[in-house]
Amino acid sequence: MDSIKVGLLGFGTIGTGVIRVLQKNADLLQQRLGKKLELAKVVDLDITTDRGVQLEAGLLSTDVEDIISNPDVDIAIELIGGYEPAKSFILKAIANGKHIVTANKALMALHGQEILVAAEENGVEVMFEAAVGGGIPVISAIKENLCANDFSNVLGILNGTCNYILTEMTENGSDFAPVLKDAQELGYAEADPTFDIEGVDTAHKIALLAALCFGTKVDFDKVYTEGITNVAAIDIQFATQMGYKIKLLAIGKNLGDQIEVRVHPTMIPDSYQLSEVDGVFNAVRLSGDFLGPALLYGSGAGMDATASAVMGDVMAIGRDMISGAKRRTPIMGYCSDQIDELPIKPMSDIISRYYLRFTVVDAPGVLAQISGILGKYDISIQSMIQPERHAADAVPIVIMTHEAKEDNINKALAEIDQLKIVQEPTRLIRVETNLG
Amino acid sequence: MDSIKVGLLGFGTIGTGVIRVLQKNADLLQQRLGKKLELAKVVDLDITTDRGVQLEAGLLSTDVEDIISNPDVDIAIELIGGYEPAKSFILKAIANGKHIVTANKALMALHGQEILVAAEENGVEVMFEAAVGGGIPVISAIKENLCANDFSNVLGILNGTCNYILTEMTENGSDFAPVLKDAQELGYAEADPTFDIEGVDTAHKIALLAALCFGTKVDFDKVYTEGITNVAAIDIQFATQMGYKIKLLAIGKNLGDQIEVRVHPTMIPDSYQLSEVDGVFNAVRLSGDFLGPALLYGSGAGMDATASAVMGDVMAIGRDMISGAKRRTPIMGYCSDQIDELPIKPMSDIISRYYLRFTVVDAPGVLAQISGILGKYDISIQSMIQPERHAADAVPIVIMTHEAKEDNINKALAEIDQLKIVQEPTRLIRVETNLG
Repeated sequence: MDSIKVGLLGFGTIGTGVIRVLQKNADLLQQRLGKKLELAKVVDLDITTDRGVQLEAGLLSTDVEDIISNPDVDIAIELIGGYEPAKSFILKAIANGKHIVTANKALMALHGQEILVAAEENGVEVMFEAAVGGGIPVISAIKENLCANDFSNVLGILNGTCNYILTEMTENGSDFAPVLKDAQELGYAEADPTFDIEGVDTAHKIALLAALCFGTKVDFDKVYTEGITNVAAIDIQFATQMGYKIKLLAIGKNLGDQIEVRVHPTMIPDSYQLSEVDGVFNAVRLSGDFLGPALLYGSGAGMDATASAVMGDVMAIGRDMISGAKRRTPIMGYCSDQIDELPIKPMSDIISRYYLRFTVVDAPGVLAQISGILGKYDISIQSMIQPERHAADAVPIVIMTHEAKEDNINKALAEIDQLKIVQEPTRLIRVETNLG
Repeated sequence: MDSIKVGLLGFGTIGTGVIRVLQKNADLLQQRLGKKLELAKVVDLDITTDRGVQLEAGLLSTDVEDIISNPDVDIAIELIGGYEPAKSFILKAIANGKHIVTANKALMALHGQEILVAAEENGVEVMFEAAVGGGIPVISAIKENLCANDFSNVLGILNGTCNYILTEMTENGSDFAPVLKDAQELGYAEADPTFDIEGVDTAHKIALLAALCFGTKVDFDKVYTEGITNVAAIDIQFATQMGYKIKLLAIGKNLGDQIEVRVHPTMIPDSYQLSEVDGVFNAVRLSGDFLGPALLYGSGAGMDATASAVMGDVMAIGRDMISGAKRRTPIMGYCSDQIDELPIKPMSDIISRYYLRFTVVDAPGVLAQISGILGKYDISIQSMIQPERHAADAVPIVIMTHEAKEDNINKALAEIDQLKIVQEPTRLIRVETNLG
């Protein structure tokens, strides 16, 4: 072959970034690959909007068949996003012998298994580094150089929109709603930010990382997912006061016979590296039995960083093609017949520390009632803040617990929230201090 | 082939770690590779010392030919270190068709080119992830997933011994000598720590990273290398006061027609992530044109982390063997006929900011004399500290400069140090605030 030919499905922001890499670094890519990478076709429904890149005549098409059924295309890059038609396009491209590079976390988290099976049947590769952590090479690190490790856990700050909002709330003492509005105006949040702020995007990503690290299928429906819409400015103030940051943390833990995979606002000590990952940056913390802890940090989104990851995958497949490698690295890091089906531990069974903010009337005996119920459910108090308040009928009481079982916390809070002295539902934020 | 057979040259600390990975994670390695990894032979001059691992009878040998000329060995892991006999062993193993995995930064930095040529002639692979940053997968990140980027610079804290010493000096206000002694007692510094504390080990590592990032040969003799033995407690105090940390920073920059590759104690703002890499940890900061900045952090040394990196390389070669890949990824990341020979910019030509500590008599007109000479050489002052001192005839004056040419700094200091008012040679520490 004289060149490796790539077809681009989806000429949006990331697609434009991919074309920019192919154009700006054409020589460099060839010097590192040994062959030319050639853009064979770009397909999008909209081929008239100016994206600021020049394309040769005839490269643009609105017909997806020009890529997925084009015998000249070696690698199809899917940047459409979402489940359909992306999935159908990918499966047809695979059936036609194309290798796949995708940034589609939703599709891979929910339908990765179906795509994997199709790819193995057809002897093609599927790579998806850009699906998690933007430009951070975390998937290739797990599948390749760190693969001699038994990973005990993987933690991540994986959504730039949420991290930007929480960082702004922390630095400026603002509430969620106005910061979201600013983020939308600045382009850091989508017009419909639901998938980001409700934690779904983060959940897709941690499901993929947990699958890769622990060698198991991950039942996405069982991933506990709580977004940041209920994080209040007052909780961030208390967190700061106690030496914590609140992050939307993605947590994957390997417990041997089951796994934990969950996403929720989490307090982490402000001395931890993860707490210092601010703004739109992402980071992943891996713990391997030989590696120990390692942190990978970088741009978690954006045209350029994501294009870097996409093109890293294209280069890997190109190297496989040129060197004659067939099915070199298993798509999910483990040989497909060795992938486990570890169940996800139910949230009610998890053990964590908890930040609890009670909103109570300022009256004698309040603390005795609350601490009595906590004690009944084996929840022991590590520290407490009852700030002095003037005015107002409702006052906050903040309690940090020692490790407790979530089920017990839920039962205790249900009982406490029935008390007449309690004015608002109690706010709970999990606290992670045991990074393994 | 039923299994991939590895031979281990050097049964020291890291070799023991490699055996521990092969034993503890045997099943996991097979699940990820698809074949068994088999330890075929372990060669060391000392085969009697108990290293705390059990080996099958007949595996140990004192005869290097049992690996480098053994037709049963697919991959030779070189963990002897140093130039000879490691180099001769590697070249003979290559001639006999063995793939090579090595942790030998000194050998690769100085004789990598000779090894590369031999490997290409014999169609074998040479991998050396463990040579830089211990368990941090930085070499594979540069060569593989980030390879679509044009890197503008690479910065690293690459020596755990130096970083431990500087961290202790910073936290405890101690001088260099007693901290080195403690480090030796704790096993964080060698009995002969010269290569570490004089910066040579760090220079080997940044020479490799610069070569990989910038696609060029790096003339190691031209790498400016200054260790940490002259870092004084007083300089650390001033740095802290001004909001900086002092690190032994390895710096690689691509200027297009030439490169900077240098190692020296460096002040970096304490708000930078690199400033927070403490103790024996390592970190590498990469800047790519699409990636943007990224940071990879982890254990920079030690039995387990280094064994993780060695075994990552073994797995990569195993995957190449099984999948039929021949010469998949170029040894230095670029096709060997595309590797440049960019000259290293002479130190006298570099532009930097500088911390200058003058030791002067406490007399009128001192500052005028010093600032006059600095001005003569186009060196402008950004900030100054002249602490109030009681007693003593000699007092420190600290000046932070704006960007200046090193040659001008040298000329100015030569002139200043001749002044009668100057009591000791002026201390210079370069300041890095422009990370690119």
